[in-house]
Amino acid sequence: MSKGITTRSEDYSQWYLDIVKRAELAENSAVRGCMIIKPHGFAIWENMKSQLDKMFKETGHVNAYFPLFIPKSFLSREAEHVEGFAKECAVVTHHRLMNAPDGSGVIVDPEAKLEEELIVRPTSETIIWHTYKDWINSYRDLPLLINQWANVVRWELRTRMFLRTAEFLWQEGHTAHATEAEAIAETRQMQEIYATFAEEYMAMPVIRGAKTESERFAGALDTLTIEALMQDGKALQAGTSHFLGQNFAKAFDVKYLNENNKEEFVWATSWGVSTRLMGGLIMTHSDDQGLIIPPKLAPTQVMIVPIPKPGAEINEAAEKIMRALRDKGISVGYDTDAKKRPGFKFAEHELRGTPVRIGIGKRDLAKGVVEVARRDTKEKESIPMDGVVDHIDQLLKDIQQNLFDRALKFREEKTTQVDNFDDFKSVIEQDIPGFISAHWDGTTETEQKIKALTKATIRCIPNDAPEEAGKCVLTGKPSNKRVLFAKAY
Amino acid sequence: MSKGITTRSEDYSQWYLDIVKRAELAENSAVRGCMIIKPHGFAIWENMKSQLDKMFKETGHVNAYFPLFIPKSFLSREAEHVEGFAKECAVVTHHRLMNAPDGSGVIVDPEAKLEEELIVRPTSETIIWHTYKDWINSYRDLPLLINQWANVVRWELRTRMFLRTAEFLWQEGHTAHATEAEAIAETRQMQEIYATFAEEYMAMPVIRGAKTESERFAGALDTLTIEALMQDGKALQAGTSHFLGQNFAKAFDVKYLNENNKEEFVWATSWGVSTRLMGGLIMTHSDDQGLIIPPKLAPTQVMIVPIPKPGAEINEAAEKIMRALRDKGISVGYDTDAKKRPGFKFAEHELRGTPVRIGIGKRDLAKGVVEVARRDTKEKESIPMDGVVDHIDQLLKDIQQNLFDRALKFREEKTTQVDNFDDFKSVIEQDIPGFISAHWDGTTETEQKIKALTKATIRCIPNDAPEEAGKCVLTGKPSNKRVLFAKAY
Repeated sequence: MSKGITTRSEDYSQWYLDIVKRAELAENSAVRGCMIIKPHGFAIWENMKSQLDKMFKETGHVNAYFPLFIPKSFLSREAEHVEGFAKECAVVTHHRLMNAPDGSGVIVDPEAKLEEELIVRPTSETIIWHTYKDWINSYRDLPLLINQWANVVRWELRTRMFLRTAEFLWQEGHTAHATEAEAIAETRQMQEIYATFAEEYMAMPVIRGAKTESERFAGALDTLTIEALMQDGKALQAGTSHFLGQNFAKAFDVKYLNENNKEEFVWATSWGVSTRLMGGLIMTHSDDQGLIIPPKLAPTQVMIVPIPKPGAEINEAAEKIMRALRDKGISVGYDTDAKKRPGFKFAEHELRGTPVRIGIGKRDLAKGVVEVARRDTKEKESIPMDGVVDHIDQLLKDIQQNLFDRALKFREEKTTQVDNFDDFKSVIEQDIPGFISAHWDGTTETEQKIKALTKATIRCIPNDAPEEAGKCVLTGKPSNKRVLFAKAY
Repeated sequence: MSKGITTRSEDYSQWYLDIVKRAELAENSAVRGCMIIKPHGFAIWENMKSQLDKMFKETGHVNAYFPLFIPKSFLSREAEHVEGFAKECAVVTHHRLMNAPDGSGVIVDPEAKLEEELIVRPTSETIIWHTYKDWINSYRDLPLLINQWANVVRWELRTRMFLRTAEFLWQEGHTAHATEAEAIAETRQMQEIYATFAEEYMAMPVIRGAKTESERFAGALDTLTIEALMQDGKALQAGTSHFLGQNFAKAFDVKYLNENNKEEFVWATSWGVSTRLMGGLIMTHSDDQGLIIPPKLAPTQVMIVPIPKPGAEINEAAEKIMRALRDKGISVGYDTDAKKRPGFKFAEHELRGTPVRIGIGKRDLAKGVVEVARRDTKEKESIPMDGVVDHIDQLLKDIQQNLFDRALKFREEKTTQVDNFDDFKSVIEQDIPGFISAHWDGTTETEQKIKALTKATIRCIPNDAPEEAGKCVLTGKPSNKRVLFAKAY
């Protein structure tokens, strides 16, 4: 059966779009740049969201909800923030439609013009800090550790499902602290939570690092990032955590009385991950047969397929396995559609990324075994019925680990230390360039020259980059640590 | 301690706003009509959402996500839908801001006008049915049972926190079926799920009924509703489930091939509840001391207060109780703030609606008891330490039941059978009018006359209204069942 999936080697971009489409994760909508997240894609996102939410709450954060709209004037308040960012966005100018006089449908009522235009939030720092002014008076109101799950809109010119869309879903944390040190610790803590989530749940290894000045969030003093490597050797910025200093507190006049009754500006952080993670998940693990979902995030971890079709004996065995798996907290489905052949079902569940498939046939049953196939390696084994549940419990853990290990191996193989610009260029021009670890002189000018020459950007200054005397790969000027370059999404 | 809450008898509307504010549920934002849902309010909404989501999934529904924006032309497609509804909404006309030439901030870039205006969704039938056209081809694609959790915007002139806001959070289910009977069964099922949720979780008794023609959702053939009675004797429409017939399928040309290979239009339903439920929750149970939250929806079910302040012995007892409560799945907090007096804390947790408070004092501990106070009746009891966990487990169930029972009793007392219009007027003019059960001649004309004369509307034709010969309370024309009138939110 042809699955209509372009292979990665043929055309990686098309492969990605084919997976998104054929695994029924998302599709384009009638609104330019806005996607529809289909049930299968949304179920994976829900699992991500629920785990992240748990991790946020375990570290003392609470959820709230702020308005979708931001008064235009708010965006003028924090100068760098406006400069860097808020230009391409959806602007609401009117609040009423009316029937067209000629009966052709509805038109915008020209009488219903808003006094001040409203911007659909591209991010919520401004409206949240405007609110925090009322919420924060004394050191006893701090820290304020708030997160919101929301949709945001950035009118991107070139969009790509999950990776860059005009509307996307995300969470944005906005915290307020009494001291600089506490805000910095929060920024780091959230980077570490994102990294842990990426590695332990998405099975996606990430580099923890800091952005250079030119790649920082508009208004931030420091932007921490987690960077993953996709199978085409391009990097994906998967989550960011910003130390905002007192910039937003000053722009919105948010002060607190400290324990000595002295007024001070509040220290801030913000941090977010989005449905972009779905793109990372897909591009880290999937193959030419379809999606691969790490077991911890799979909406259905195990799918049972009757061979050739359901029947009393097979149903009974399936029910028994399902009960036992569910008792262990493992999600399982039973594909009883009598109109589809087993081979078709196998291909379908492979396409949709189900981590484990159990085939139950009459002949196997007579021998007291079932067939267990794992999605990641496509290996199949005959497993005795009475040991199958423990086997699968372990197998799901093995798959989770194997996906992480092979992604890590790939990243390690595709990370090259480079010490001169000729080597830099030859690595970056490869089919699958990967990360380049090189010295850089610390100037934005050099960073931009390298980008102009190679399309590679500095993804981050890794947290764990050792101090090491070296020379900038472009200018030869002194440098004291290596940074990571890559082409990026 | 004055809590700054107006009493209900003094000014019910102000009481409501005071509860919302003082219990820190929500507040108005800088954007007209848009509220900020504060952490305590949002935690209650999260509990509602999580239970409803579970009930939707148990009945075979899956979640997805559709765009925030709807092309303006879509709203012209289903004529009744436009007529009834989509006029007061937020219209996006531009997609870019720019720096003002005079340096005064940002302005809308006049060059960035959209070819077709986008409407921020007031509800998503149109964009979803536009999508379903591609998703539905054959009877094998049906039923399609999709729900989305989303924000929507309706540019209401008069807003009131939770009850009517320009932006609100809700879920909207949109299902497609092969037959009329199946779609009607779905419409009823969802009404019943809403009613079960309202009664079993919110402890808010509801009348299940159908809307009259003039109160139906724009584009629906039938609108089922659940109607609750607030403490001021006004009704609250708490959830609706619409049978849409083939109206949207025809407007968006959604057909399927049936088992005999014949093309037919699809049958549709839609159904929704929103953050308005928060308003219902507040107005059903709360009192002049503050919010009352039914235990099943309380973010913190039990709060432990040390008397007069934390100390080794009290901490140890508190920890022991907390562990045991958590083992039973009961959420519990321990208020260790040493700067607030116990009396202040008691008032605070009362205000915030915590169902049960445990006071632990040294003298009580010496006697092996703690003080347990319930929020609903404000009764206090001394309970032996070693029986306290079982006691509280049962107490939470009792409180849940008591809240329902007293709301039901109130509704029954405030439901009056009326057989002539003088009585109708005298009941509706009372301070707390409640529901009026009366005969009606079935015409929109009479319904509107009654509304003009009394401000009362027909809330619903109850599902269980018995057949009974009677005469319309206004016109004297024949009627075969009573309907429920009330003033409403």
